Amino acid sequence: MGQTLFEHCNAFKNLSRLSKSVTDKNCHLRHLIQEKDRLKNFSLKMEGFFYDFSKQRIDDRVLAELLNLAGETKAKETFSRMTAGDIVNVTEKRAALHTAARDFTHDAIWLNDVEVISEMNHVNLQIKAFSEKIHHRQITGTTGKPFTDAVVIGIGGSYLGCEFVYTACKQCVEPQMDLHFLPNVDIDNFGQVIKTIDPETCLWIVISKSYTTTETMANLNQVLLFLKTHHLDPAHHLVTVTAKGSPGDNPSNPVLGSFHMFDFIGGRYSVTSAVGGLPLSLAFGFDVFNRFLTGCHAMDSHALNAPEEKNIPLISALISIWNSNFLRYPAQAIIPYCSALSRLTPHVQQLYMESLGKGVTSDGKLTDYQTGVIIFGEPGTNAQHSFFQLAHQGSPFPIEFIGVVKPAYNKDQAKSKGVYNHQELWANMIAQAQALAMGKADDNTAKHFTGNRPSSTIVINTLTPESVGMLLAFYEARTVYEGFILGINPFDQFGVELGKHLASDIREQIKRKNTDAAYAFNALDPAAAFYLDTLFKGAL
Amino acid sequence: MGQTLFEHCNAFKNLSRLSKSVTDKNCHLRHLIQEKDRLKNFSLKMEGFFYDFSKQRIDDRVLAELLNLAGETKAKETFSRMTAGDIVNVTEKRAALHTAARDFTHDAIWLNDVEVISEMNHVNLQIKAFSEKIHHRQITGTTGKPFTDAVVIGIGGSYLGCEFVYTACKQCVEPQMDLHFLPNVDIDNFGQVIKTIDPETCLWIVISKSYTTTETMANLNQVLLFLKTHHLDPAHHLVTVTAKGSPGDNPSNPVLGSFHMFDFIGGRYSVTSAVGGLPLSLAFGFDVFNRFLTGCHAMDSHALNAPEEKNIPLISALISIWNSNFLRYPAQAIIPYCSALSRLTPHVQQLYMESLGKGVTSDGKLTDYQTGVIIFGEPGTNAQHSFFQLAHQGSPFPIEFIGVVKPAYNKDQAKSKGVYNHQELWANMIAQAQALAMGKADDNTAKHFTGNRPSSTIVINTLTPESVGMLLAFYEARTVYEGFILGINPFDQFGVELGKHLASDIREQIKRKNTDAAYAFNALDPAAAFYLDTLFKGAL
Repeated sequence: MGQTLFEHCNAFKNLSRLSKSVTDKNCHLRHLIQEKDRLKNFSLKMEGFFYDFSKQRIDDRVLAELLNLAGETKAKETFSRMTAGDIVNVTEKRAALHTAARDFTHDAIWLNDVEVISEMNHVNLQIKAFSEKIHHRQITGTTGKPFTDAVVIGIGGSYLGCEFVYTACKQCVEPQMDLHFLPNVDIDNFGQVIKTIDPETCLWIVISKSYTTTETMANLNQVLLFLKTHHLDPAHHLVTVTAKGSPGDNPSNPVLGSFHMFDFIGGRYSVTSAVGGLPLSLAFGFDVFNRFLTGCHAMDSHALNAPEEKNIPLISALISIWNSNFLRYPAQAIIPYCSALSRLTPHVQQLYMESLGKGVTSDGKLTDYQTGVIIFGEPGTNAQHSFFQLAHQGSPFPIEFIGVVKPAYNKDQAKSKGVYNHQELWANMIAQAQALAMGKADDNTAKHFTGNRPSSTIVINTLTPESVGMLLAFYEARTVYEGFILGINPFDQFGVELGKHLASDIREQIKRKNTDAAYAFNALDPAAAFYLDTLFKGAL
Repeated sequence: MGQTLFEHCNAFKNLSRLSKSVTDKNCHLRHLIQEKDRLKNFSLKMEGFFYDFSKQRIDDRVLAELLNLAGETKAKETFSRMTAGDIVNVTEKRAALHTAARDFTHDAIWLNDVEVISEMNHVNLQIKAFSEKIHHRQITGTTGKPFTDAVVIGIGGSYLGCEFVYTACKQCVEPQMDLHFLPNVDIDNFGQVIKTIDPETCLWIVISKSYTTTETMANLNQVLLFLKTHHLDPAHHLVTVTAKGSPGDNPSNPVLGSFHMFDFIGGRYSVTSAVGGLPLSLAFGFDVFNRFLTGCHAMDSHALNAPEEKNIPLISALISIWNSNFLRYPAQAIIPYCSALSRLTPHVQQLYMESLGKGVTSDGKLTDYQTGVIIFGEPGTNAQHSFFQLAHQGSPFPIEFIGVVKPAYNKDQAKSKGVYNHQELWANMIAQAQALAMGKADDNTAKHFTGNRPSSTIVINTLTPESVGMLLAFYEARTVYEGFILGINPFDQFGVELGKHLASDIREQIKRKNTDAAYAFNALDPAAAFYLDTLFKGAL
């Protein structure tokens, strides 16, 4: 365990020792949670955001030592350097300034010769003006009809965050345009999307920093063919979100607008840049996007300024490290008791697993401790009727519950068994955390519950653009804190390169066969050749 | 490791020994997959279904010993007993006859005094007649308009499988009615659903065996209020799928129709009963549902009759056990390279984790070996741009890729980089399995890939009701095989009971407070009381 961190870090050693007492049979959550003032001492609150970690398997000593770990690893200092524009993405020699995209306090952050805040404000003003023209029907498609739908063509970080925010906000704000997502190079993803839109009233938003992402370019080409088939001019139906000077920002390929993204914000942290800004402003109006930014900024300020022992994302990162490295849980579930947050988990799954799924420290040493773990989840109570059997009686994993005090639905509500549906929802959320922690002895072993299964609970007041922003920024801050403490770079993703490279080799083989039917796949290994032969034959 | 199985089973001991040689540093997948005839010797095929396990970390000796494990644990005999109607669900003293729901070969299976095959055929004839009347507009809603949409009110096994099959088949068969799903007691799930339907043309399908499932009854009450508000008669807008004689099968609560389900088919295995049969027949017509059953039956016959060494679900179950118990992987990802299969993983997540997430053997001993693991996944290539960083460079987990030879989309297709999108999709699927297995050494540790990460690949020819049925039945058969070999009961789910019980206690407290505003939650623990106070206050 943890040699790399061990070398430098007393807290890690102490935590390793403490973990033995916590995994002792007599130290059961059943007892821990009954300690006096347990909730008060193991929960944190900021305006509109509550974090309860009283059902985690920690005590005062563990918490104190975790805070020492944050101190020793200088987590807060690194976070502060990140927000100031330091090169915290060391392997790619870049800043990580997603917080600047919603920074309403700084006047200026200079990065080389670029003033980041005003650059991004400038893009936001363009987005505001453009989306208003679309909504006011001053910009229309080729046939003059106003736009009703927009399709985001982008994959990974170019859509997952936006999809989460759109799905959540749609529940509390009526959209002015409907958003759709075309991430997958699967032609059937395209087939699904075109069934739901009218080509004349559809705007296509191409999102790619380099404008070379394979899937995105393949889908763009398919859309160009589709527009041509429908006699529609791409110049009147496409917009791009891309880096300045990329092929998508080239006047010789005219589009309705081109909005810049910057290399100091990585894909999975880009929702508050033009990547989310353009589609969300088209969907809800720029003002709603701006309210969302306000919520992100509130959480950023807390993450930056709150002292360690009051810092929600930091404490939450420490607990995650405790669970993965010392209690050896291999996964974490995120279970929002809120249907509108159904796309939060897929977003955090990318954010967290791509940021922390590393085998090497920022300074190039192989890690011999646990870095990121698996994140998965479905909304509650659905999850209770799906995989919670395993959570209660199989191999345990920590769960993060999310509750929303007030639902969005405000029409007549029925009562069942004396309670409203939203009350039933909360009764279940509370009960699951209890059941996991407490367990229940039974002589019938099939009905025996060991308990001692940890969970946290996050509560927000109501679903608003602001609270959705807080959730987004909470998970971003927690992820980077966890990376900083573990000494790994949460901003690169070299692990995706090898697959891309090998796919490129295989693509070359397919390309040859496309022009020469007699071409044989002798250059490939037998399995790859078998699959390509099957593909060309059209059947097994 | 494995004392309970150890007691009885030589193969388990031998596998434990073999695992040491396979986890030896010199035994790398990079070498294994280059052995002569590797693909031929480590893949299996049946009509229209190919299973490649050549990139699993096994060799001839491991495979032979895994087959011994199946033999020693009498897996095939138990499967056979299951299909014949024996009481294989021992804790609940029930048969598990989901295979009988699509059995076109048996004339009769007797269970006590009930002849199962004819009972289910009878229900299917009712479904056929009812769905035809709906499609022919002989049955309409209160205002005489034909039905265009149907909402399934059901949770867990009452909707997840149906949702998977509907989502997949929609890609290859044009629906006659659109299906929607209302599982969650979250009132906002209801709010989302009613935005997408017209009350006058909407049919509500209530699915609950006991007709007492809390979420389903709460949603039913909300729907009854909704119908009343819209002056629509429930007797003309509701149908039920429920056990004979349940409150949902009571003529004093008139509905358009009531279709029976049986206690010899559990929720997560119920897609081919009326639970899937009614909604899928309404969506696509009974003939399409019947084609789907044909595909299930083909896989069932294979699972029942193919010898162990040729038996795809059985081999796949053995590999799962190898990975979880001997190589100690805590999870498995299922990655369909097919957007239309996007809801396969949530279905299998329930099927597998609820069936195998157990801590006790069928005869009541506590398991001291690994039972079920975590199942998660998103479609490829999306997953590559989400969590595959962790798959390549973080803690490894086995992956199951699923490819479909021909896409459903059949209109003009663009080429990018010399290949069609579907070819690009396959290039990526093949490359990911290669990259995970092979790895790639690099002096720059950030770009170093250890490889030796196992995967399987399943290929089907094209998306049809039949092939979707094969996939469904494959995962069912594999799940029960894994349960039988591990000596656990894959049909019960006592682990969900404690949470239900505690939720019921909390509900009682809420109910009191609903009628007495002064009521204080003194009977609850401080955390639960805090949450309920917050809920009643309406804000943190």
